Amino acid sequence: MSALRVAIAQVDSTVGDFTGNADRIRSVVTDAVSGGAELILCPHMALTGYPLGDLARSAAFQAQAEATLALLARELPPHATVVLGTLGGDEEGRPFPKAVVVRDGAVVQHPRPAAGPGNDAIGQVITVQGYRFGVASGMDLTGDAGSSLDGAGLDGLLLLYASPFEIGHRAARDRLRRACAGQLRVPLFAANLVGGQDDLVFDGDSCATDRDGAVVVRAPAFREHVLLVDFDGEVRAAEPGYTEPPEPDPVGDIYEAVTLGLRDYARKNGFQRAILGLSGGIDSAVVAVIACDAIGAENVTAISMPSAYSSQHSRDDAAALADATGLDYRVQPIRSLVDAVQAELALRGVAEENLQARLRGLVLMAISNSEGGLVLAPGNKSELAVGYSTIYGDAVGGYAPIRDVLKTMVWQLANWRNAQARERGEPEPIPQNTITKPASAELRPDQQDSDTLPEYDVLDALLHGYLGERRSAAELVSAGFDRHTVQRVIRLIAGAEWKRRQYPLGPRVTSWALDRDFHVPVTSAWQEQID
Amino acid sequence: MSALRVAIAQVDSTVGDFTGNADRIRSVVTDAVSGGAELILCPHMALTGYPLGDLARSAAFQAQAEATLALLARELPPHATVVLGTLGGDEEGRPFPKAVVVRDGAVVQHPRPAAGPGNDAIGQVITVQGYRFGVASGMDLTGDAGSSLDGAGLDGLLLLYASPFEIGHRAARDRLRRACAGQLRVPLFAANLVGGQDDLVFDGDSCATDRDGAVVVRAPAFREHVLLVDFDGEVRAAEPGYTEPPEPDPVGDIYEAVTLGLRDYARKNGFQRAILGLSGGIDSAVVAVIACDAIGAENVTAISMPSAYSSQHSRDDAAALADATGLDYRVQPIRSLVDAVQAELALRGVAEENLQARLRGLVLMAISNSEGGLVLAPGNKSELAVGYSTIYGDAVGGYAPIRDVLKTMVWQLANWRNAQARERGEPEPIPQNTITKPASAELRPDQQDSDTLPEYDVLDALLHGYLGERRSAAELVSAGFDRHTVQRVIRLIAGAEWKRRQYPLGPRVTSWALDRDFHVPVTSAWQEQID
Repeated sequence: MSALRVAIAQVDSTVGDFTGNADRIRSVVTDAVSGGAELILCPHMALTGYPLGDLARSAAFQAQAEATLALLARELPPHATVVLGTLGGDEEGRPFPKAVVVRDGAVVQHPRPAAGPGNDAIGQVITVQGYRFGVASGMDLTGDAGSSLDGAGLDGLLLLYASPFEIGHRAARDRLRRACAGQLRVPLFAANLVGGQDDLVFDGDSCATDRDGAVVVRAPAFREHVLLVDFDGEVRAAEPGYTEPPEPDPVGDIYEAVTLGLRDYARKNGFQRAILGLSGGIDSAVVAVIACDAIGAENVTAISMPSAYSSQHSRDDAAALADATGLDYRVQPIRSLVDAVQAELALRGVAEENLQARLRGLVLMAISNSEGGLVLAPGNKSELAVGYSTIYGDAVGGYAPIRDVLKTMVWQLANWRNAQARERGEPEPIPQNTITKPASAELRPDQQDSDTLPEYDVLDALLHGYLGERRSAAELVSAGFDRHTVQRVIRLIAGAEWKRRQYPLGPRVTSWALDRDFHVPVTSAWQEQID
Repeated sequence: MSALRVAIAQVDSTVGDFTGNADRIRSVVTDAVSGGAELILCPHMALTGYPLGDLARSAAFQAQAEATLALLARELPPHATVVLGTLGGDEEGRPFPKAVVVRDGAVVQHPRPAAGPGNDAIGQVITVQGYRFGVASGMDLTGDAGSSLDGAGLDGLLLLYASPFEIGHRAARDRLRRACAGQLRVPLFAANLVGGQDDLVFDGDSCATDRDGAVVVRAPAFREHVLLVDFDGEVRAAEPGYTEPPEPDPVGDIYEAVTLGLRDYARKNGFQRAILGLSGGIDSAVVAVIACDAIGAENVTAISMPSAYSSQHSRDDAAALADATGLDYRVQPIRSLVDAVQAELALRGVAEENLQARLRGLVLMAISNSEGGLVLAPGNKSELAVGYSTIYGDAVGGYAPIRDVLKTMVWQLANWRNAQARERGEPEPIPQNTITKPASAELRPDQQDSDTLPEYDVLDALLHGYLGERRSAAELVSAGFDRHTVQRVIRLIAGAEWKRRQYPLGPRVTSWALDRDFHVPVTSAWQEQID
């Protein structure tokens, strides 16, 4: 048999944007066919976007998916075979994801649901130019993805994913693919979505492997790409001058993921601009630079809102960041607002601290209401875990870019981004002083985070152990954490659930994102004992 | 065989409060045994509380559940048989609910998980005084609950529930029990939890039926109760002077459910007091009266916060409600705060409207931070569906008592509660003017809700059709709704998802609560067409 050119289309679909998604698929397929491709793979649910939540149950949504598919099929180049993920509905209207095969203007293979709604679509076989391929489609396909096809005399397996980024996920997918290939002993062709959808960021990482499952050709992560592969029983790159993308950098990957997450959240929700408070501290600095990278510094408004307790160095650091990035920088002191409220309410202590944060939130929302623009919340995962934030204050916003990033990683992101700038011969966007000074909310005189919380290296290690690894309090004490600190942090985590429930969404970058992966009752008397 | 006295204990457990839950069960069982009971049923997960979310996966939590059970077993009266729901863990630490049988100081039956974590525990048989009973335990047991026991020569079936209130749920349970009894042809003994747990309110509704599944004895809803039943093959009430509780009143049931939900949220989370803004409008009036009924008027602080656009009648109505109920009433004008912000920001239009709502939210949170107390958000389901509220303004709070109550039902609740007062010879708590005047947010001159929204009878019918019955836009137009109104409301629903995600939790009273039962992506381009 002659060699077959396969195109693996790593596309950024938008939920419910049938016209846009179909246009994108048609354009990508047309280009790929011009480039000689005869078989084109598009990811799981590429036509509908993913995940759909309750939209999937809408009969009108299912009907629109079918109508769009039929129309698209007629518009795709004839003779090419396109395998693409979309949504179907069974006789009772229950939704199921499916992988369809389009050729010569029509859907030629149209599987029925396998094991009920929401399950992976696994087990078809298609033939292209004499080669037999199995097809499997799902969110995170397991090493068993091809097991139902064992013995089907396959030449290759097509895997359609909608698999989101998380730290370590690429290596995990590689392992699962080796297990899968090890079972069938055929090359794999894997197409994954790319782009942000609410709290998920699809990283792409599409690839083709040899019959051991070792990657031969891999697409760049975090952007749209069409990977061209030639197949004659063995796989080889068909792009001229193809080179393997660099090994993933754990810090850089997180930076890219949250930046893409914000860019797509803004674009897909129709925001041209973003607005945030810029305190001079590390969290808002990193969020500001992410926003500049995501949508352009000229579209980012950063407001310095000093109160009586804001230090001069913080104001200087905020101004320095504005200079370095070129974002739209404004100063709106809140002292007169604080005074007006205090004349009426005379607040003290935590109430006075929260007042400042809430007036800042009010200013940001007022600017958003007046000028348009997406308000960004600067909270990090360490804060979110223990509730070290002011609800309706610094917690306001439509998107929270670093809500799944621990504080220690926020500093690493800052250093990574500054190093990138140095490599490119650009000025460092984040002032060194912002990175090196002790963290402080600056809501009372000489306040530091460490007055209230453990040092962040301890706190983050504890959070990772308790929430990420689900170790018990007793195990953490045995591992060397201070008993009192463990008890206190665990209590803070439980007490902050009500605030987490009301926090803006933001990109998930770990396997233990708060809310999606860790969800406890607000009302709970449970106190874990250490004995 | 002699007659057996059975006690069905409808208890209000708290999640994770092992000591409190065990104390309660011990006390109830001891009393029941004093009253002659030999078999005592406690609901599904009565020892742990329900639902547990990720707490169930904690090895420490599972271990504490086992330790508490062992301790409780030793403290229960000997010779009585207690069937009780709790949590177990399998060898790999996966949680499973289970029904255990305690007798003579020990757990005598301890089932293994049936069909994996989270599933109902169904299929045991126990013998008490010669009578053979099947046991099934779960959240909402189906008519098939006894199917695996068919032919086991049973005399009765014990059903342990953790089944929450929703409109029509009692009738649905009665139907399912008739189906279940119809299969086995034996009487049923059903014990359900009662009380609030985050967004769920368990209504009790425990009962015993004849062999057709028709209820013979039923516990009162929405409060703890021990139902005593004698059984000699047939079921009869063992309480002296037992009378069947009145037929459920759909409006009264909702009022009782949200009141119990708030009472338990406050009690279980350690709040003695509640705080809310009292505008003179219907929503805050109903929430204020619910709060008074839930925790006592003396523990409710209601703040009137007039701005330039607040009408005199609204202020009068708020004061009248305060007089009628005796709650702690305060007036805190926000005009000087609005002026201070406007001197800096000069906001217009929606930004100016939202400013007033946000300053009110800020005042409520400041009082909560200063004095303690749970802030109540007054938003109703119609508002929440279409986003007719100010995020970080009237949406602030820890609990939102009427978030699952449509606006038209809010008026019905007001009328129902006033009628209750008249029946008891008390003054009506809610001023008639608050009920009869047109709804208005009073954020600009002469504003009315109907400027922006369809009339509420139309809006609520549309919401019920689209969200509750999941009818398509085209079906709704065919059913007589105005095409333009349908399109607009559907668009508003989609656009408000981001606000719903940040809204405080509150009691679920329908099968289509926003968030728990209806969850769409924030990022979505889907627009349902009508053709």
